[in-house]
Amino acid sequence: MPAKLARIAADRLGLIRARRPRIHVVTNTVAQTFTANALLAIGAVPSMTTAADEIGAFVAGADGLLVNLGTLEADRRGAIRIAIAAAEDKGIPWLLDPVFIDRSPARAAFARELAGLGPAAIRGNAAEIAALAEGEAIDALARRLGAVVAQTGESDHVTDGTRGLSVANGHPLMAKVTAMGCAGAAITTAFLTCGGEAAESVAAALLALGIAGEAAAEEARGPGTFAAAYLDALHGVDALELATRARLGPDLREKRS
Amino acid sequence: MPAKLARIAADRLGLIRARRPRIHVVTNTVAQTFTANALLAIGAVPSMTTAADEIGAFVAGADGLLVNLGTLEADRRGAIRIAIAAAEDKGIPWLLDPVFIDRSPARAAFARELAGLGPAAIRGNAAEIAALAEGEAIDALARRLGAVVAQTGESDHVTDGTRGLSVANGHPLMAKVTAMGCAGAAITTAFLTCGGEAAESVAAALLALGIAGEAAAEEARGPGTFAAAYLDALHGVDALELATRARLGPDLREKRS
Amino acid sequence: MPAKLARIAADRLGLIRARRPRIHVVTNTVAQTFTANALLAIGAVPSMTTAADEIGAFVAGADGLLVNLGTLEADRRGAIRIAIAAAEDKGIPWLLDPVFIDRSPARAAFARELAGLGPAAIRGNAAEIAALAEGEAIDALARRLGAVVAQTGESDHVTDGTRGLSVANGHPLMAKVTAMGCAGAAITTAFLTCGGEAAESVAAALLALGIAGEAAAEEARGPGTFAAAYLDALHGVDALELATRARLGPDLREKRS
Repeated sequence: MPAKLARIAADRLGLIRARRPRIHVVTNTVAQTFTANALLAIGAVPSMTTAADEIGAFVAGADGLLVNLGTLEADRRGAIRIAIAAAEDKGIPWLLDPVFIDRSPARAAFARELAGLGPAAIRGNAAEIAALAEGEAIDALARRLGAVVAQTGESDHVTDGTRGLSVANGHPLMAKVTAMGCAGAAITTAFLTCGGEAAESVAAALLALGIAGEAAAEEARGPGTFAAAYLDALHGVDALELATRARLGPDLREKRS
Repeated sequence: MPAKLARIAADRLGLIRARRPRIHVVTNTVAQTFTANALLAIGAVPSMTTAADEIGAFVAGADGLLVNLGTLEADRRGAIRIAIAAAEDKGIPWLLDPVFIDRSPARAAFARELAGLGPAAIRGNAAEIAALAEGEAIDALARRLGAVVAQTGESDHVTDGTRGLSVANGHPLMAKVTAMGCAGAAITTAFLTCGGEAAESVAAALLALGIAGEAAAEEARGPGTFAAAYLDALHGVDALELATRARLGPDLREKRS
Repeated sequence: MPAKLARIAADRLGLIRARRPRIHVVTNTVAQTFTANALLAIGAVPSMTTAADEIGAFVAGADGLLVNLGTLEADRRGAIRIAIAAAEDKGIPWLLDPVFIDRSPARAAFARELAGLGPAAIRGNAAEIAALAEGEAIDALARRLGAVVAQTGESDHVTDGTRGLSVANGHPLMAKVTAMGCAGAAITTAFLTCGGEAAESVAAALLALGIAGEAAAEEARGPGTFAAAYLDALHGVDALELATRARLGPDLREKRS
């Protein structure tokens, strides 16, 4: 199983580096630069406008869309609706990252509205997924929305409602760099543009991200040098490194029972 | 005296790493990423929304607030007023950083209004503090506002109106990285959440920042590697390093007379 | 010829480090931090507000202005018009960077309007310059606008309509870091504040940028460490390094025929 997911991750990375997919990213201003650099590092091409009169054209020219709800200014909501409509219209995958919705009721309500509009995947930490699910089990949430749901943490759990995958790679320094999760969601969106089974694409992306974090930690002296080394690692990660480092986590459903 | 302030800095840092205070930061978009990374590096948890319908909830869930006036868009003023009201309501400390008010009369007027709303501390360079004080002595300004005033520069001067502290640590490369001051103000806000005497918290924060800059310069080959090394140093700085590097500056009042 | 342009670049850099020109930058939020750090690294002083009631005062106090059209929110257009009027009023040089206008018709129309307002220089990649020129040859475009036009790419081509200069320095990792072009445009603006022939200032800036990229690549293990090393290289680049690394490219008109 780790070998299989590592192989899928290597295949998807190869496709991204060859095709250079355009990923349009609606994200908070804190995360923009690191997210753009992470996308460039794996071979994708980022664009980031949120201007209402431009975003439709940008999404129409893109291969995937990330909607991140951090620092959600009022005028960004309109832009997000236009962007999602353009993605649905063109049939490209989009991913919802409901950042900090456990801290703001207004933002949680907006996230629940967007979750019903057909995202290919939703990614959040345990508190964010709980705020979105409102008591529903994560498998049931995935089935109801028809979306892959990924809950990140010490282990990452991915489900499409029928099948669960779990990844145990990563490093504690990843929690000491801002926008690490947002950049990861952007890279996951790039993996979704490759086709294939969506749950596998999401889990393969999380595997590659965790392995890049482990490789970077070996080069770093703290969170500052780690952030730079992480971009280096995303740029250089290959099939051999993925195969030798891959570690799958406990299944989510077993863990819950 | 250096030994005492170094010990206070080590104590405050220990508290921050143990308690992980949430710091809500209203700052300019240039400074957001580095500021978030600096807060994460010392063990605090940043949030940064400026959306009017969200910021109240974020500040209500925070332990401290930083108000930085850089790149001050019109709609950010309303958000700042909401944030300060929420901080005063909850009784958490907030710090005012009147960035570049010497370059914009409109911004200076707004800063003077905010300075009257009860900040725990105000931090600026000589030109910014002069624009705020309008001829008043900095001790008198601190007494009138009931706030700690910190004037940063080659030496940093801190006063609560009755007592002055001065710190001489730092490195010239700190002036070659954008947002170094803004990130320092955020870390100073985290120090203020620890309780104890506010002037000591502010001076201890400036001591730790200057020492991290000196340690980082030993690892750097220029301003780019310095920025990364500075985050590493903030993450790793400990009681021994603080004690051995601490250098207090000349007293502000002596210097003036 | 390479020796002459290298000498001009060294002279301009010496002036910037001595005079510390203030550069006001209207740029997208993705590029702000790296652009500010690049300006600081060469010795200039950045400011970045886009607030309509502040930007006039900031530009009036500046020595040069960069107008970058990335992530062009509606309210930024008004601020850009105010900024350009202030620059024309004071007689300081301003540079137009029409980012991604090939991807958004609304943005292209706005860029063509601004191009008629008297920029000292316009900088873009081949697709952006083509979208601006609408079929016109780049020399003709430069003559009609009375502006230096720089088309960046594997080789950079600079023309003022009568004279063409071409620079072949640079490194592929420069395309793997976001805001590299935006930061380069800001540094080019700083070079324009030095006086002298504008086409030479622009070509000298592009030469220095490409050489810094080559020097940085020798220190880097990937795009993350490259970005930090690039700022180090901008900070440290000197006359000897410029002279020994300078490589001029093929003339644009020869290439086209």
